[in-house]
Amino acid sequence: MIKIRTAQLAAVPSHIRKNMKQIEKEAALARAEGAHILVLPEMCLTGYLIGDLWDQNAFLKECERANEKVAALSKGLTIVWGSLAVDWDLINDDGRPRKYNAAFAASNGHFIYPEGSPLPFTVKTLLPDYRCFDDRRYFTSLESLALEEGKRPEDILAPFVLPAGKEELRCGIVLCEDSWDENYRISPMSILAEKGISLFLNLSASPFTMGKDGKRHRMFSESLSRLSIPMLYVNRRGLENNGKDCYTYDGMTAAYDKDGQLIAEANPFTDERSTFYFNQENLTLAPETEMEPTDENLLLPAFRYGTSEFLKAIGASKVVIGVSGGIDSAVNAALYRSILPAENILLVNTPTRYNSELTKGLAAELAENLGCQLLTVPIGDFIDETADALEGLPLPDDTVHLTGFMKENMQARDRSSRILAALSAAFGGIFTCNANKTETTVGYGTLYGDLAGAFAATADLWKYQIYDLGRKLNAWYGRAVIPEGIFTVMPSAELSENQDVTQGKGDPLIYEYHDYLFRSFIEPWQRQTPEDILKAYANGNLEDLIGCSIIVSNIFPTAKDFIEDLEKWWNLFSGFAVAKRIQTPPLLAVSRRPYGYDLRESQLRPYYTDAYLSLKEKLLAD
Amino acid sequence: MIKIRTAQLAAVPSHIRKNMKQIEKEAALARAEGAHILVLPEMCLTGYLIGDLWDQNAFLKECERANEKVAALSKGLTIVWGSLAVDWDLINDDGRPRKYNAAFAASNGHFIYPEGSPLPFTVKTLLPDYRCFDDRRYFTSLESLALEEGKRPEDILAPFVLPAGKEELRCGIVLCEDSWDENYRISPMSILAEKGISLFLNLSASPFTMGKDGKRHRMFSESLSRLSIPMLYVNRRGLENNGKDCYTYDGMTAAYDKDGQLIAEANPFTDERSTFYFNQENLTLAPETEMEPTDENLLLPAFRYGTSEFLKAIGASKVVIGVSGGIDSAVNAALYRSILPAENILLVNTPTRYNSELTKGLAAELAENLGCQLLTVPIGDFIDETADALEGLPLPDDTVHLTGFMKENMQARDRSSRILAALSAAFGGIFTCNANKTETTVGYGTLYGDLAGAFAATADLWKYQIYDLGRKLNAWYGRAVIPEGIFTVMPSAELSENQDVTQGKGDPLIYEYHDYLFRSFIEPWQRQTPEDILKAYANGNLEDLIGCSIIVSNIFPTAKDFIEDLEKWWNLFSGFAVAKRIQTPPLLAVSRRPYGYDLRESQLRPYYTDAYLSLKEKLLAD
Repeated sequence: MIKIRTAQLAAVPSHIRKNMKQIEKEAALARAEGAHILVLPEMCLTGYLIGDLWDQNAFLKECERANEKVAALSKGLTIVWGSLAVDWDLINDDGRPRKYNAAFAASNGHFIYPEGSPLPFTVKTLLPDYRCFDDRRYFTSLESLALEEGKRPEDILAPFVLPAGKEELRCGIVLCEDSWDENYRISPMSILAEKGISLFLNLSASPFTMGKDGKRHRMFSESLSRLSIPMLYVNRRGLENNGKDCYTYDGMTAAYDKDGQLIAEANPFTDERSTFYFNQENLTLAPETEMEPTDENLLLPAFRYGTSEFLKAIGASKVVIGVSGGIDSAVNAALYRSILPAENILLVNTPTRYNSELTKGLAAELAENLGCQLLTVPIGDFIDETADALEGLPLPDDTVHLTGFMKENMQARDRSSRILAALSAAFGGIFTCNANKTETTVGYGTLYGDLAGAFAATADLWKYQIYDLGRKLNAWYGRAVIPEGIFTVMPSAELSENQDVTQGKGDPLIYEYHDYLFRSFIEPWQRQTPEDILKAYANGNLEDLIGCSIIVSNIFPTAKDFIEDLEKWWNLFSGFAVAKRIQTPPLLAVSRRPYGYDLRESQLRPYYTDAYLSLKEKLLAD
Repeated sequence: MIKIRTAQLAAVPSHIRKNMKQIEKEAALARAEGAHILVLPEMCLTGYLIGDLWDQNAFLKECERANEKVAALSKGLTIVWGSLAVDWDLINDDGRPRKYNAAFAASNGHFIYPEGSPLPFTVKTLLPDYRCFDDRRYFTSLESLALEEGKRPEDILAPFVLPAGKEELRCGIVLCEDSWDENYRISPMSILAEKGISLFLNLSASPFTMGKDGKRHRMFSESLSRLSIPMLYVNRRGLENNGKDCYTYDGMTAAYDKDGQLIAEANPFTDERSTFYFNQENLTLAPETEMEPTDENLLLPAFRYGTSEFLKAIGASKVVIGVSGGIDSAVNAALYRSILPAENILLVNTPTRYNSELTKGLAAELAENLGCQLLTVPIGDFIDETADALEGLPLPDDTVHLTGFMKENMQARDRSSRILAALSAAFGGIFTCNANKTETTVGYGTLYGDLAGAFAATADLWKYQIYDLGRKLNAWYGRAVIPEGIFTVMPSAELSENQDVTQGKGDPLIYEYHDYLFRSFIEPWQRQTPEDILKAYANGNLEDLIGCSIIVSNIFPTAKDFIEDLEKWWNLFSGFAVAKRIQTPPLLAVSRRPYGYDLRESQLRPYYTDAYLSLKEKLLAD
């Protein structure tokens, strides 16, 4: 029996030295346990989403030296790990040194060459280049390598024969996307299976997305049962970012038997190691390990892990949160309080005369429930003073006149850029941005105001998901730390008398509809545009298309109403809101398509297709 | 003789309808002139840098219909254009519809098929995936297409035979990168030359970068003289962005004869059409056209064009500029004034007691020279009032105490987020961010303060280039609109008494050195890191490596001083400054590596290689 140990490392992005230390520790633990093979994730020395750091040759050389150190660690133990490989004699298409996203194996201090390979590693075959992934920007694929040598991928891709005590393990080592082959011309797993292997090892750095674990199980099970080969999937943990988007890695190392059945799965987001036995035919979990597959909803665990890791990564342990008495700030406060002690949180309420007693009271109740200090800093006088100072000043063609709308934005900027920024500096921490995805989509928020902050934890959640996260937080606390009144109060920015919640007035968004409409603009793999929306409206199946439960004709009595609303928001979404998103803080990515580097956007003028315009004309004429 | 006409269209990104109108106009002009062939640039219907708009199938269909309309325009005229091609029966690797960056030709209403091709277009062979380019994210290359069909690129890439009056033109049509083949495995131009063609047409969407035109001439001349085939290079004009970075396209349509000599070149950034004669052997310029190759420095033209196009693109015609009396804001003011009437500009000076009479006077002089209105809005009292309101408020572990440093940031935020933001709203325009690349590199600036604004025109210029642009602006005006005193005053933020310019105190940066040190971190194709810098320092050739003229040992008497300075700035560059850059405004890209989407960055902890650390230890021990 071969004993295989896995470690779902939380690689620190770019910090090769720290990651080397983790690997040394894992090797010692594996050796102490008498494991024959230790399996580590993809890119576990450098991290994966590290931007253009791959341009720094000194960094590449550091990584090569670290690979040699890992090989040197493999005394009495076979180590399998994902890392960068460089061939200094060749170049990438960009003229920089040739780089591969590679998998290595070493035993007794020596690198193991895949069968018949001149290279002491195997190369990632399928390089993703969608969402946040830019693999082709940095790495040469096995397919390109084959082409260059006048070969086919199947001529190069080869099994590893790994020493395992007195036995040998003939296995196929693949990297992440290599097992997600549904849209590719070639299947690395099929090629390796043809060459006769008894086990797959998949080394991954697969960012968490809601619902992805289910899809993974379905895809992997299907392939493995077809090939009749078991698989160990080792995914990393930790947090990485590409500037705008912060991604968690859930770990969730998993084992599938030769029938494709999921037989074990690590707890998400936890520092778990696991041990498996392999009898040259099938994989079994070591009896001492407990790894029940999870069926937990991962929304809250992802948020608590991701937010906590983000704070650690930037070296912050204190946060200032502006709380209005509304749901967004309440969810953020409860989220941070679930990972930080009360004394590391300062809640700040900054009312003007437009803020109701109701919401001020709810903010106070929230603070009390969380055990956090609440500062109240009224800003109305200051806004008035600024307005007085500016009103009537000469302009080239006029004099300054500040409209109500301008004063609303002044309030928002005053809260964040004056009060929260100064208080967070004095407190020695950061201040948060409490935006949600619905607002962000249409730019319903003020730059340098409520759109400012060091981190926008909840900006990848639609409004309905904000409420859901709030409920989950209350369940986690085991009591209603977010008061029920916050769930039921009208969502409102309370920046003018037109947004008076006590009169039932609030945001101009109909969340029951707009959440789903906006989601259809960006999250489906085939994205919807006004043309698609209007066609569905005309066909009476819009609710199905966007997945909302409200009946659209109940909101918009006529086609004209419907079209006006659609165009108003589409113009904002594809126009001015992009300008705002360029300057918003990093967010925690959990959806299938977060704004930022995942959904890449140019500042453009909104566009309507000819087909849209003629259907619109027809509908308005009817 | 074949008469070929070119039009360097300024494609409006994503606006197919507007671009179609431009093409209709060009076709009419070409026909009126009796041209046989009209050549248009790459992606001239959709634009090129349009982010993930390629995910919208309705947009793809709109583009297909537009291609048919262009073909229909080709009555009595052959039209060659770059555009998107879609094959709905195939998929890209991401599972979305198969898309090609393609070149089309049509004559008498019909698409022309490349020789032996089943497809009515040719596919871009070399897809760039570096800097701002993401071609492989969206498009399938000719090489991948060949692979899929079990063929080689040379089996597929084929000449077009274009009708030209009573003659025919057998030409090779390539797209942009296809002619920049130095680092690729295959050369589309060589393949086409082998197949016997008499002329190359290169359709481009090649963003402007300083110095790129010279490199283009050298590369193209070398290839063409080797192949002994002339070329017409048709590049687009206009401005595109990918969010953070705005790129100009210079047009600069160029003709090279069969010896590779540049025989004609359009004026940069201008709406030029040109006409050429081709006698089946060589290319000559129509005698009625004047196209002297330019040897102008394009820095100022790029800035005037790019800034002007940006304002048009976002629909802004008025700007508010905070002017401090320093060089950065002065250059921005002079730049905007060079493209806008005086009454569309409002200059604002927002002094505190730390601003000297010297700089306030210089700001006033600048405003007078530009004929612009200057508003003076002192902010000292407001800062004091905010400080009074916050000082001493209770914190969970302490009370609020605002340090001098915190008050500096408060001043910066107050200027932008309170004063400039409100004034620009009242004026009906935007306010500018006047940052430069040196500050941006190390985050020497305040978020929501001097780093805020709708556009950071000069943020891709090192400090020495800011001065250079200032000199060029004065030369353009023909008088010193930027007063000489602004060129000579100590650069300073004037946020405290430690930055008193009248005492010769100012910024903590030694621009004569740091400009070049920082440049070496990001702009060379092989980027420098502390390891490379310290090695060069130890070898005594640092000045050569980074290209500065100051002697480094004159600034840093000891290795310890040198290392402290290096680490201080590297820590900021690779640490906190990234957090700031995530939230900074769009900039005008002119360098070989602008921050943003061109240099992609993750928020990471600074890293020093082992080799750096041991050299450091050695140097400090000496």
